[in-house]
Amino acid sequence: MVKKELVSTIVSPLGTMNVLSNAEVKMLQDSNQGGLYPLFRQCALAVLNCDETSDNPYNLVEEFESFDIRIVQEHRGLKLELINAPGSAFVDGNIIKGIRQSLFCVVRDILYVSSGLRGSPRFENGDSEVLTDLVFHILRNAKALIPRQLPNVVVCWGGHSIGQGEYKYTKKVGYQLGLRGLDICTGCGPGAMKGPMKGANLGHAKQRNSNGRFIGITEPGIIAAESPNPIVNELIIMPDIEKRLEAFVRFGHGIVIFPGGPGTCEEILYLLGILLHPDNAHIPFPLVLTGPAEAEGYFEQINTFIGNTLGSDAQRRYKIIIDDPREVARQIKLGLDKVTRFRRSTGDAYYYNWLLHIEKSFQEPFEPTHESMRALQLDRDQPTHQLAANLRRAMSGVVSGNVKRNGIDLIRAKGPFQLTGDPAIMEDMDRLLGSFVKQHRMKLPGSVYEPCYEIVRSSTV
Amino acid sequence: MVKKELVSTIVSPLGTMNVLSNAEVKMLQDSNQGGLYPLFRQCALAVLNCDETSDNPYNLVEEFESFDIRIVQEHRGLKLELINAPGSAFVDGNIIKGIRQSLFCVVRDILYVSSGLRGSPRFENGDSEVLTDLVFHILRNAKALIPRQLPNVVVCWGGHSIGQGEYKYTKKVGYQLGLRGLDICTGCGPGAMKGPMKGANLGHAKQRNSNGRFIGITEPGIIAAESPNPIVNELIIMPDIEKRLEAFVRFGHGIVIFPGGPGTCEEILYLLGILLHPDNAHIPFPLVLTGPAEAEGYFEQINTFIGNTLGSDAQRRYKIIIDDPREVARQIKLGLDKVTRFRRSTGDAYYYNWLLHIEKSFQEPFEPTHESMRALQLDRDQPTHQLAANLRRAMSGVVSGNVKRNGIDLIRAKGPFQLTGDPAIMEDMDRLLGSFVKQHRMKLPGSVYEPCYEIVRSSTV
Amino acid sequence: MVKKELVSTIVSPLGTMNVLSNAEVKMLQDSNQGGLYPLFRQCALAVLNCDETSDNPYNLVEEFESFDIRIVQEHRGLKLELINAPGSAFVDGNIIKGIRQSLFCVVRDILYVSSGLRGSPRFENGDSEVLTDLVFHILRNAKALIPRQLPNVVVCWGGHSIGQGEYKYTKKVGYQLGLRGLDICTGCGPGAMKGPMKGANLGHAKQRNSNGRFIGITEPGIIAAESPNPIVNELIIMPDIEKRLEAFVRFGHGIVIFPGGPGTCEEILYLLGILLHPDNAHIPFPLVLTGPAEAEGYFEQINTFIGNTLGSDAQRRYKIIIDDPREVARQIKLGLDKVTRFRRSTGDAYYYNWLLHIEKSFQEPFEPTHESMRALQLDRDQPTHQLAANLRRAMSGVVSGNVKRNGIDLIRAKGPFQLTGDPAIMEDMDRLLGSFVKQHRMKLPGSVYEPCYEIVRSSTV
Amino acid sequence: MVKKELVSTIVSPLGTMNVLSNAEVKMLQDSNQGGLYPLFRQCALAVLNCDETSDNPYNLVEEFESFDIRIVQEHRGLKLELINAPGSAFVDGNIIKGIRQSLFCVVRDILYVSSGLRGSPRFENGDSEVLTDLVFHILRNAKALIPRQLPNVVVCWGGHSIGQGEYKYTKKVGYQLGLRGLDICTGCGPGAMKGPMKGANLGHAKQRNSNGRFIGITEPGIIAAESPNPIVNELIIMPDIEKRLEAFVRFGHGIVIFPGGPGTCEEILYLLGILLHPDNAHIPFPLVLTGPAEAEGYFEQINTFIGNTLGSDAQRRYKIIIDDPREVARQIKLGLDKVTRFRRSTGDAYYYNWLLHIEKSFQEPFEPTHESMRALQLDRDQPTHQLAANLRRAMSGVVSGNVKRNGIDLIRAKGPFQLTGDPAIMEDMDRLLGSFVKQHRMKLPGSVYEPCYEIVRSSTV
Repeated sequence: MVKKELVSTIVSPLGTMNVLSNAEVKMLQDSNQGGLYPLFRQCALAVLNCDETSDNPYNLVEEFESFDIRIVQEHRGLKLELINAPGSAFVDGNIIKGIRQSLFCVVRDILYVSSGLRGSPRFENGDSEVLTDLVFHILRNAKALIPRQLPNVVVCWGGHSIGQGEYKYTKKVGYQLGLRGLDICTGCGPGAMKGPMKGANLGHAKQRNSNGRFIGITEPGIIAAESPNPIVNELIIMPDIEKRLEAFVRFGHGIVIFPGGPGTCEEILYLLGILLHPDNAHIPFPLVLTGPAEAEGYFEQINTFIGNTLGSDAQRRYKIIIDDPREVARQIKLGLDKVTRFRRSTGDAYYYNWLLHIEKSFQEPFEPTHESMRALQLDRDQPTHQLAANLRRAMSGVVSGNVKRNGIDLIRAKGPFQLTGDPAIMEDMDRLLGSFVKQHRMKLPGSVYEPCYEIVRSSTV
Repeated sequence: MVKKELVSTIVSPLGTMNVLSNAEVKMLQDSNQGGLYPLFRQCALAVLNCDETSDNPYNLVEEFESFDIRIVQEHRGLKLELINAPGSAFVDGNIIKGIRQSLFCVVRDILYVSSGLRGSPRFENGDSEVLTDLVFHILRNAKALIPRQLPNVVVCWGGHSIGQGEYKYTKKVGYQLGLRGLDICTGCGPGAMKGPMKGANLGHAKQRNSNGRFIGITEPGIIAAESPNPIVNELIIMPDIEKRLEAFVRFGHGIVIFPGGPGTCEEILYLLGILLHPDNAHIPFPLVLTGPAEAEGYFEQINTFIGNTLGSDAQRRYKIIIDDPREVARQIKLGLDKVTRFRRSTGDAYYYNWLLHIEKSFQEPFEPTHESMRALQLDRDQPTHQLAANLRRAMSGVVSGNVKRNGIDLIRAKGPFQLTGDPAIMEDMDRLLGSFVKQHRMKLPGSVYEPCYEIVRSSTV
Repeated sequence: MVKKELVSTIVSPLGTMNVLSNAEVKMLQDSNQGGLYPLFRQCALAVLNCDETSDNPYNLVEEFESFDIRIVQEHRGLKLELINAPGSAFVDGNIIKGIRQSLFCVVRDILYVSSGLRGSPRFENGDSEVLTDLVFHILRNAKALIPRQLPNVVVCWGGHSIGQGEYKYTKKVGYQLGLRGLDICTGCGPGAMKGPMKGANLGHAKQRNSNGRFIGITEPGIIAAESPNPIVNELIIMPDIEKRLEAFVRFGHGIVIFPGGPGTCEEILYLLGILLHPDNAHIPFPLVLTGPAEAEGYFEQINTFIGNTLGSDAQRRYKIIIDDPREVARQIKLGLDKVTRFRRSTGDAYYYNWLLHIEKSFQEPFEPTHESMRALQLDRDQPTHQLAANLRRAMSGVVSGNVKRNGIDLIRAKGPFQLTGDPAIMEDMDRLLGSFVKQHRMKLPGSVYEPCYEIVRSSTV
Repeated sequence: MVKKELVSTIVSPLGTMNVLSNAEVKMLQDSNQGGLYPLFRQCALAVLNCDETSDNPYNLVEEFESFDIRIVQEHRGLKLELINAPGSAFVDGNIIKGIRQSLFCVVRDILYVSSGLRGSPRFENGDSEVLTDLVFHILRNAKALIPRQLPNVVVCWGGHSIGQGEYKYTKKVGYQLGLRGLDICTGCGPGAMKGPMKGANLGHAKQRNSNGRFIGITEPGIIAAESPNPIVNELIIMPDIEKRLEAFVRFGHGIVIFPGGPGTCEEILYLLGILLHPDNAHIPFPLVLTGPAEAEGYFEQINTFIGNTLGSDAQRRYKIIIDDPREVARQIKLGLDKVTRFRRSTGDAYYYNWLLHIEKSFQEPFEPTHESMRALQLDRDQPTHQLAANLRRAMSGVVSGNVKRNGIDLIRAKGPFQLTGDPAIMEDMDRLLGSFVKQHRMKLPGSVYEPCYEIVRSSTV
């Protein structure tokens, strides 16, 4: 491994969160049990490591073992002292401003979630409504909810380790979205998270749109593997993966899904699970699956899998558009017009999809373990949206076993997760995951993939 | 009484606090026990009644009995529906923008204090530090703490019912402060709260300073009697009188005190009580007492009272300047330079005076009742700053008996408060309060003052 | 005379005109015949002398004989070096920003008129249209013409040396105009030129209107006697009095006239002369004459004079409103709505009244000399609007003899101007001018007025 | 040829030049001799045809024969009516804002040059200083000269029809420049004019620089062949090619030259001709020639040609950097620091290089005809900077014969231009131009190049 350049410096905030109380500073610097320092350091390091393309969160941790971050409170306001920070965050010794800004977003969200909300009795009972409220509060505190603005936030999902052709395609779609004044929201990271932003940035420039929003929504468990790219000008760190997903669907107004791996598939299943709930049948939600010509097969597999498992109602919820960035942008724009009319007619907020019904089961963290994965009900003895939820959990486990620290540890210790259920569904799942492996969609290209899951046929149960 | 014009309309927010959660809307509209509606209505009415010059909070309540305010949540964001609002808030049927803005400050502060902080375990124990932190949080949430800005907030205290000559003088001082780029912070209301802002507004205009800050810090108990004037462009509603006072001294960088009545005297005593604490001896705090030529006698009486009761150390903490607005501004400016150097050298924040030591006894609400007033220790068997604190409580009781609903009710029911203590001090106090009565500084001119206090000579105890 | 404080310093520009060519710098510093230095120095001194209340331009010249101004070109841009400038322009040694800004407006307009336009063949032939175009170009170069903005510029005319009661009244009218979002345009100077701006500034503050425009339109001959007050945030120096008047009527959308002296009367006659032209009969032009109760007689005299000389058609062109600032603002607002509808229906620009027909005779400088004054045709053998034009010239001569250098010199040398014409008209004129003398409207109060004119009865011709 | 989509619509201005006088509108719409309409239509069409990649200005004219543009003056301000405009300027029927903005830059510059300056006696005599002043005035009128800003404008020159590898490289260099906060100025058009802007746009986004400047300087003769790309946010149309070149060297602070054809070579020779003048020996002017690895040979040829003809002094004026975008940006940044120090020490403006001496011969239009080309003195009997000037003229003729309407017409009529001179120089020239032909640098790839020049050996003279 090439020795990375390290930089130590003091940085001033850009934008928000300039002013901390003494108590808050103490919390951020507290490395004891319950203190925020470890979380703070981990997220800050991920933000600084924006150039990193490794998929392995362990690498990051080891590579920058000597990294440290400290709060400097002084008469003018808050500063951060960085020690042995990754050199890729700097240009000629000066930190890139986009990264500087994101660092202070980390401070903002960690403090807000930890001190403002954690202890509050209002958020202690875990009602579905309260969780939705919590997501709302975090987004509002991040100033992400802008009233009086027509729906124009397009969430882009897709793999962070896609090929050059697919990556270029995401840029072209982003460009067409940007030309139409649409803002981009992704999960941070490279690949399909970065391409649309780069493209939209150019589109915004041509349209003299200097207020273009590039929103990255992440969470502490995923941020290390998917460092926010510096185009992200609104970084939001949700407390866990489920709140992050809820943030996407309540905050975004439409979704474009590019090719990806199991993470992308998890997101599709999560979304369909919600949209298929009877209460949401009338709520418009523009959803386009798209890729360049070479991705046609990939989307056929997904479409077949969804058709086989969730049926044609699920398929009607999305459009598949191959190799036509302009048409993607047009369809999304038409969809957003519908969303606008719907919100206007129902009085629902433009900036937050309050009406969307999300079951508690979608909001609760799914902790993938060998037990919980094995116990998943993957059959047809349940409403379709429940099946979607469980299929999503299965995918979530695969993602965890592939790239998350906890998951990797578990797999190392006890071997692959086992999945079981309805034979036809299991068959479909096996075929889908197998095709991901074949297409190198499980890991960054180059590394050999060792499956972290095992399909257990019902006969063997 | 002339029939007031009433206006019903819907107003959109100006500036912050555009986005509420469903839960927050419910709280604001909850008129049950513990609900925020009564507080919300009362503060909103006070803001709308900006032209009101009556000193009697009862009048306001009775006059606008039919006033109602409702939250309108719709797709674009938050609006407020006003029903039978005071006509003085409107120009040709359109609400004055400054008032519109203040209305949404009310929403912001009431919600923040009630839902964000009230329940939080962090703020439940009442340590002195925690109370200081609470004041900090409310100011930060109001975006009042601006980092990287040199100390330039001048708090102006003084009576809200002063004569024309004194009022004009406060405008001239404000003009000189504004010409020097200084921002004005007052307790809202007319008189010495409004004059400096009007003057500074002209000074700012000549200096092309369109970011001039006119900060009004109030609290629910006082707001009805001292409606924020519409020049106030940052209205902050602290939860009680003690936090309001702490906000003044930690947030302001220097203080100018104009002639006033017992309320002004209370503020002087509060401030001296803090500055005289040994821990604060080295902290610079520019403090000027000033008025036109006709106010010379008034300040002589105050100065004598302070000299007799608190001694020459207390007198050294302020300058008295008669009839020289330019000199007042110059002295304050010099003082602010000292504050800047001090904060820089100690690393204390420009925007919040963390270092100032404030004893718990200054932070705790003093509830003036016949018992608590009678029990005040008003003698020399205590450190000077403690005596200052108790003298301040006595004044606070007089203010309450004069203009606050609770106080007026108590006096109506049980007669005047009784005060007792060291005979010399009692003598001084009697003389001072008597001079206030003579100078019509107890009530709006025109009404006859019935004292709400009684000095009980020690012999009669 | 008290010795004035003098300040020498270097000032940077605020806003526009930061960049000069080497040739332009040379022109400004050229004190030879044809060079711009004398004009530049004279206007700059007037701007700096903002506190001056003397009516006598000689005083200014003599008092600040040692004043000098130089251009400093350096790598960062343009600066001005001031030597022995009037101290009233400074606060604690720092120039007031409003004055700083006005100084650079002087540079801008002097250069533009002299180098950009003077030589240009387009502006050499003196067609009426070309003169109108010239006024347009100067206003556009000053960035005064803002497209897409609804008509809201209210021109305020009136005396610069009015009494306290009248002055306060102009503030109140300005306040009501400002509350309604209207911008103020005056001829610079104190009195009725300053009051409305001060009032409107407060109204704008309450309406959070930080873009309020305070436009002062002056010309080199008048600027010394009527220094722009520092609230003026757009100073425009027209090349002569006629272009200044044309700028007022084409740029302003409505006019409020306060009490004044012969200058104010000149302005009323100029305006009526234009509005009475048959081509302008259909063009709406809101015009209100107003003052406090004590000015009722004044306006009665004017109204009678106009009725007697120009007839009731002329009287229908204005409303007289006594002692009701709110009603003045409402009437003007209603009038502006009419202007807006008219411009929209005719396609005429919001920002420049192209359609208003102004005869060449109104655009040409009237040089008051003993000959030209004596030769004025002041009888009824001409259309009404011509008579108005000639009456206006007569007033112009009186103004010149009162306060302009040329005029004063002529009077000193050859005695008062002589006026002659129709006996009834002469009678009316004598009565009107006599009443101005009686009311001290000819000079600053305190000085004794020596008439600069003489009515020569027809019998004596 | 594919039939292009045509759009007719009315567009409002973005930014400047919103307000025209009636006389100006007439001029723009005057299609008579001397009227501005033909020039206006031609430039507007070029701006609208931003997607066009043809090198042949004839195509543009023929393809959009039906295109028309009209001024719409209405009450709100100026609008443009477009009839049968190229569809590539629109997104879903709405004009791209960048193009909209550029359209109004066309109006601004055409009017300013034609009406404001053409007739003015100041600019009629053609002194070198006056021409420099003229360039200054056009730039200032375009608001391109920003005082108080440190030198940071990097001019990028290079071919508009370069290969993919070279194009990508220009993006990477632009990205590194953008990361360092540098603004980009090019001659408009595709290829090396567009790549650096796209790259810098991304760099600016990461650095949160929303004020990044993308300045395109063009002239009527070149604009059709090199349509401004819509990233250009400051389009400036100089009246002719020489003033355009002077604008580049006086306005830009450093220059990066990418691979190109004879046009690029012309620019290098022009620049060296100036820098080699003895008066300019001490003036720092950062100049980097750069390209990807595959361009190494190209720059070797240029370097050899310069060494052979102008000598090593000329070679010391530039650095050649191959395949290292970061180093290019660093060298330019270091050079800009030198420029800053130099301007500061000499007092020369940051925004305009007044001190640079440019001989009249560089400012005068060179009209390439068969006679003028044949007459060029291409030998060593002259100072080096004169030789450079003549070599530059030769290249200018080649460019004209390749892509300009006049030149193409001449070549069609009379065959190739003939060049003659010192045999060694002619040899070098032949080799250089021959290598351009071989590398397809004379025309867009695909078309076969027919040389528009002929080297005539001295023996044949």
